[in-house]
Amino acid sequence: MGERMLVQGNEAVGWGALNAGCDGFFGYPITPQNEIPEWFSRELPKRGKVFVQSQSETGAIMMLYGGAAAGFRVMTSTSSPGWGLMQEGMSHLAAAELPCVIVLVQRGGPGQGSVRHAQMDYLCVTRSGGGGGYKNISLAPASVQEIHDLIQLAFYLADKHCNPVVVLSDGILGLIAETLEAKTIDFGPLPEKDWAVRGRDRQRDGKRRFIHSYPSGAPPRGGYANYVSWLEHMGKKYQEMADSELRYETYHSEDAALLLVAYGYVARVCKEAINTARAEGLKVGLLRPITLWPFPYQVIRDKVDLGCRFLVVEDSLGQMVEDVRIAVQGRAEVHFLGLLSRHLPTDGGMILPGRVLEEIRRLS
Amino acid sequence: MGERMLVQGNEAVGWGALNAGCDGFFGYPITPQNEIPEWFSRELPKRGKVFVQSQSETGAIMMLYGGAAAGFRVMTSTSSPGWGLMQEGMSHLAAAELPCVIVLVQRGGPGQGSVRHAQMDYLCVTRSGGGGGYKNISLAPASVQEIHDLIQLAFYLADKHCNPVVVLSDGILGLIAETLEAKTIDFGPLPEKDWAVRGRDRQRDGKRRFIHSYPSGAPPRGGYANYVSWLEHMGKKYQEMADSELRYETYHSEDAALLLVAYGYVARVCKEAINTARAEGLKVGLLRPITLWPFPYQVIRDKVDLGCRFLVVEDSLGQMVEDVRIAVQGRAEVHFLGLLSRHLPTDGGMILPGRVLEEIRRLS
Amino acid sequence: MGERMLVQGNEAVGWGALNAGCDGFFGYPITPQNEIPEWFSRELPKRGKVFVQSQSETGAIMMLYGGAAAGFRVMTSTSSPGWGLMQEGMSHLAAAELPCVIVLVQRGGPGQGSVRHAQMDYLCVTRSGGGGGYKNISLAPASVQEIHDLIQLAFYLADKHCNPVVVLSDGILGLIAETLEAKTIDFGPLPEKDWAVRGRDRQRDGKRRFIHSYPSGAPPRGGYANYVSWLEHMGKKYQEMADSELRYETYHSEDAALLLVAYGYVARVCKEAINTARAEGLKVGLLRPITLWPFPYQVIRDKVDLGCRFLVVEDSLGQMVEDVRIAVQGRAEVHFLGLLSRHLPTDGGMILPGRVLEEIRRLS
Amino acid sequence: MGERMLVQGNEAVGWGALNAGCDGFFGYPITPQNEIPEWFSRELPKRGKVFVQSQSETGAIMMLYGGAAAGFRVMTSTSSPGWGLMQEGMSHLAAAELPCVIVLVQRGGPGQGSVRHAQMDYLCVTRSGGGGGYKNISLAPASVQEIHDLIQLAFYLADKHCNPVVVLSDGILGLIAETLEAKTIDFGPLPEKDWAVRGRDRQRDGKRRFIHSYPSGAPPRGGYANYVSWLEHMGKKYQEMADSELRYETYHSEDAALLLVAYGYVARVCKEAINTARAEGLKVGLLRPITLWPFPYQVIRDKVDLGCRFLVVEDSLGQMVEDVRIAVQGRAEVHFLGLLSRHLPTDGGMILPGRVLEEIRRLS
Repeated sequence: MGERMLVQGNEAVGWGALNAGCDGFFGYPITPQNEIPEWFSRELPKRGKVFVQSQSETGAIMMLYGGAAAGFRVMTSTSSPGWGLMQEGMSHLAAAELPCVIVLVQRGGPGQGSVRHAQMDYLCVTRSGGGGGYKNISLAPASVQEIHDLIQLAFYLADKHCNPVVVLSDGILGLIAETLEAKTIDFGPLPEKDWAVRGRDRQRDGKRRFIHSYPSGAPPRGGYANYVSWLEHMGKKYQEMADSELRYETYHSEDAALLLVAYGYVARVCKEAINTARAEGLKVGLLRPITLWPFPYQVIRDKVDLGCRFLVVEDSLGQMVEDVRIAVQGRAEVHFLGLLSRHLPTDGGMILPGRVLEEIRRLS
Repeated sequence: MGERMLVQGNEAVGWGALNAGCDGFFGYPITPQNEIPEWFSRELPKRGKVFVQSQSETGAIMMLYGGAAAGFRVMTSTSSPGWGLMQEGMSHLAAAELPCVIVLVQRGGPGQGSVRHAQMDYLCVTRSGGGGGYKNISLAPASVQEIHDLIQLAFYLADKHCNPVVVLSDGILGLIAETLEAKTIDFGPLPEKDWAVRGRDRQRDGKRRFIHSYPSGAPPRGGYANYVSWLEHMGKKYQEMADSELRYETYHSEDAALLLVAYGYVARVCKEAINTARAEGLKVGLLRPITLWPFPYQVIRDKVDLGCRFLVVEDSLGQMVEDVRIAVQGRAEVHFLGLLSRHLPTDGGMILPGRVLEEIRRLS
Repeated sequence: MGERMLVQGNEAVGWGALNAGCDGFFGYPITPQNEIPEWFSRELPKRGKVFVQSQSETGAIMMLYGGAAAGFRVMTSTSSPGWGLMQEGMSHLAAAELPCVIVLVQRGGPGQGSVRHAQMDYLCVTRSGGGGGYKNISLAPASVQEIHDLIQLAFYLADKHCNPVVVLSDGILGLIAETLEAKTIDFGPLPEKDWAVRGRDRQRDGKRRFIHSYPSGAPPRGGYANYVSWLEHMGKKYQEMADSELRYETYHSEDAALLLVAYGYVARVCKEAINTARAEGLKVGLLRPITLWPFPYQVIRDKVDLGCRFLVVEDSLGQMVEDVRIAVQGRAEVHFLGLLSRHLPTDGGMILPGRVLEEIRRLS
Repeated sequence: MGERMLVQGNEAVGWGALNAGCDGFFGYPITPQNEIPEWFSRELPKRGKVFVQSQSETGAIMMLYGGAAAGFRVMTSTSSPGWGLMQEGMSHLAAAELPCVIVLVQRGGPGQGSVRHAQMDYLCVTRSGGGGGYKNISLAPASVQEIHDLIQLAFYLADKHCNPVVVLSDGILGLIAETLEAKTIDFGPLPEKDWAVRGRDRQRDGKRRFIHSYPSGAPPRGGYANYVSWLEHMGKKYQEMADSELRYETYHSEDAALLLVAYGYVARVCKEAINTARAEGLKVGLLRPITLWPFPYQVIRDKVDLGCRFLVVEDSLGQMVEDVRIAVQGRAEVHFLGLLSRHLPTDGGMILPGRVLEEIRRLS
């Protein structure tokens, strides 16, 4: 059994990483995720692990390149403007097939935007913001415990698929405090990182290795004849990731006539609204994607076949709603309640249970 | 009448910018777009305009911030890895509502990828790769002449909407040479840039101005009470851009039973295949989006209603095909011919007319 | 005849550069020299010349490398902490034998120090702060007019010797306003820059050229067999610079029993004190080095032979006094009045005429 | 008794640092000192200490700022071009009075110069290359054992005086292998670092501390009324360092009529020449400064009084010879044998015993 403690979501990132055997953290401060690097700066060195505050986010993401290439479990965290600075590195990490974990604690954008909570980086996270068409599994926790658990899963999936994995948090999840049971989760065995660059003397076969993306030299993982055959391999890998790693939660969805779709902190707001609505007899439920990529398109399509209508709730101008529309294919109503759907002029744009409930009633 | 000359696509960027009254170019070298900064370095200074080779792509994009804030028509160009480095800046430019033009000559990705032609940055260009949910009009030329003309349109639309505009070229369009008639296009009047920072003495009203995104101070364009009201303004502006700036070309589409959807150099390959197919009596046509954002969803839906089937051809693993599927909503077949749909093992992944024709025949 | 105007010392840098035919300025802001980049940003572009605010001082100094290598007259300016950042570049410029001008407006150090006036960079300017034993002529103006004139001389000497030249100003000279007669000074003919990199097509002999320091390839200026023979050439050039470019001013020095040695703004303070002292019948004079490197060692030695005693006055803890001691060789008294030699606890360390006069009286 | 082993000079840096209780190393690769960061990257992490390869030399030197401010024993190493990049940081470290150690393995300059051995950074090391008139003790080892011992002394002196200390090695000392007896040397007690920034909770008095140079806020070490009073403190500290830390070695100097002055590897070459010369009956000896700053001026002056003549031998165009001339004050002959004083056209400029002996014979 693990240790029970009361911690903030940002701190749960640290406990999750520790329980995943994270070897090193590299990052640069930005609100609202500063508790994450602060935690690692305090806890990693005394355990013989590495914490480095880099000169910039561009530096941090490239330090992941180096650490992951050497076979270590490494990670970084940032918020939205810093995420923009990491896009070139994300594309390089994907190209070099380097397993690592990036925690993105979303804040309001675009640009410097606001340090408030938001869900405005969904599209660039799920659509290869750095360019070149790579894919990365994106995990969206909705509680402190789940942050802890999904960080561990993220390291596992990164190693399993040799690919960067993003954990998409937000400014509210990062700062709320909840009880956490911190223990290591066993996701099963992983292949040895025999591709890692460890220095010739520590390499089992005594051969030097180089890690880089095609086509600067020999392929990192074995023989691709040319760029297109490498892309074939990449495309196949992305398809395997899409096919095998889908995760989602449903809540009162079995008989729901109206299905809310929400992730992260907003999903919890929706649950509260659903509880009240159910007490009022309204047939409403929730689909909460845990993986944003891959996205539960088929789950939604099955609900369309059952006659469901949909309400997407997001702390943005509308991003995940695009994926719901792709799934629904125009065969059911898709409503949207977003950052601008204010209940009161003074509520600052936060998605509150009362406002969701009001919308549920209006649509039921 | 304009000057007629034989130029490469990358050079046509320069002539278009010059005819648009471009005041300054800031960039960093990367294949396959080096002819663009080379052109500007040679042609701008002797006309009393500014060329700067910045220290990096992060520097170049922020120089656009400065130049645009001062009211000048400024631009940069890059290729895919450099585009990754510009993502933070893109989000800042959008947030500060600064008009400027970014030319992206796509090469193969992800990461360093290949210096070959490709169309693998479609998703991040149309889905706010830098995060925060901004939108930017994306123009996709398919000839040297159109590069020249769309560069001018890009400057016009940037000024009209106070927003960065992306011109999405590729490694083939950039290097082919065609006849160009270079002349200035009049798109109509534009409002004065009374918001520009010109130094207090040159400001008409003698007041200092500051350009920045909400919420670091007073709003750049006038009174937003708070972050949410600023986002309301931004959301409304993005909607106006989506509603008013759609551009596309159709080719033999009136009676087409099979409609190809392609952009950029691939659209020209498709036209050649269509010519042959039409000669064979096959009812096939082309929809070529000129704006990738906004995307011609409704145009496609109208074709769905007429019973069309679709073949998306892209030099990628499949990116624009997502938008076609969004449009089609599952009500018609959507086929995909991409980078891996090789005719011969040795063709290097280029989309050739013969391969497209073969697919047309198979689907007809 | 030139134009007469009332300008600050920092502005006189600009007029001097303009009259020297300066083609480009590259710099980064820092107090107390911000008027210099401001001037260039306003005046250069409208004359078809180049102004770039670089990302940093390390960027600015390397832009000089590029501009000078292409055969242009280029310059930068900075203050003390920025000068620290330029040291690697200074050493590279010297090694590549690239003519350019660096204006250093000294402020109080070390580190961030104070934005006040000071003369605390003498040693690193005259002792190759960037390492490797290069030499650079260092010119120390003492008036607005002389700033203007020495900037022109700096460009001439840089071209004559193919070497960077430093103009050492300070926070007082930079900010005082005096009448300036701005006109071009003719220092005589200079050899053509046939070594410059101009692009193969614009090179007279149609050959490509490369500019770099030994030993990365072919020598920039012609055949050095190896590193040592290149150093022989460099050592000989430094000796020629030392032998031919000494400049200094004397004031009431003919019959002086006490010779003040001072440069920059402090030399003017000393002149005022000398005027009063002479009125009191005291035999006191001034030696003002205009070149700090080469330094007027022999001029001082000749005064030693005549029985002179010396008072060095510097706005520092004592730097140039080292050179005076080298010259005097222990054969005469060398007194020092520096930044800590305060007259009143409240005078902030400025060297004032009253304090110098007091010291003159004490020593006479 | 310590451990005996055969190691290179660059490795001896590591063992010395380890025996001094070094907590962290931050650096960037450059020939001929790459064995130093390689050693630390291998040895520090497994001992729970910190190694970071920074993005650049400017980053490395500022990481020393952070580590030293937190009270840790931290160091970096570099070679000549990297030393140029560290000059701004050196000045900041001195201003903030932060104890740390910088190892400079000299190579040929200026600029990129040559990766060969050289002694061409003497002047900028001893004359505050970063500007602002700070002083740093500079230690010059001449053997692998002494490298090890002086690294330890460097940490001690840095802590004792709250000042950066430079250890000046060269490309020959760094690469030769000799027997090393590695043990910790006890230099005596040091005051507690009660000024260090440790986080409020770990601070004994529970107060926050800030480390910075005057005048950005409260002084780091206690009450300076203003900039001048802070400089008074700094000037006094530099004088104390100069007065108390002089170190040098003499060899056959008692009855020497000709005294060689040399440091580093060249001093060993001189000893060999002296041995031969003594066997020939020539009265020749050696003064080897171990501290280059402070410099043994008085030791030389005492020899002048005894009628000595001097021969300075340096692997440069002449740098330390300036200090010898300052000491001698024109009262004795000072000869110079430098990098260009070649015996054979083919010897590459290395100072060899035969060439020194020849000069000794010529001067005896």
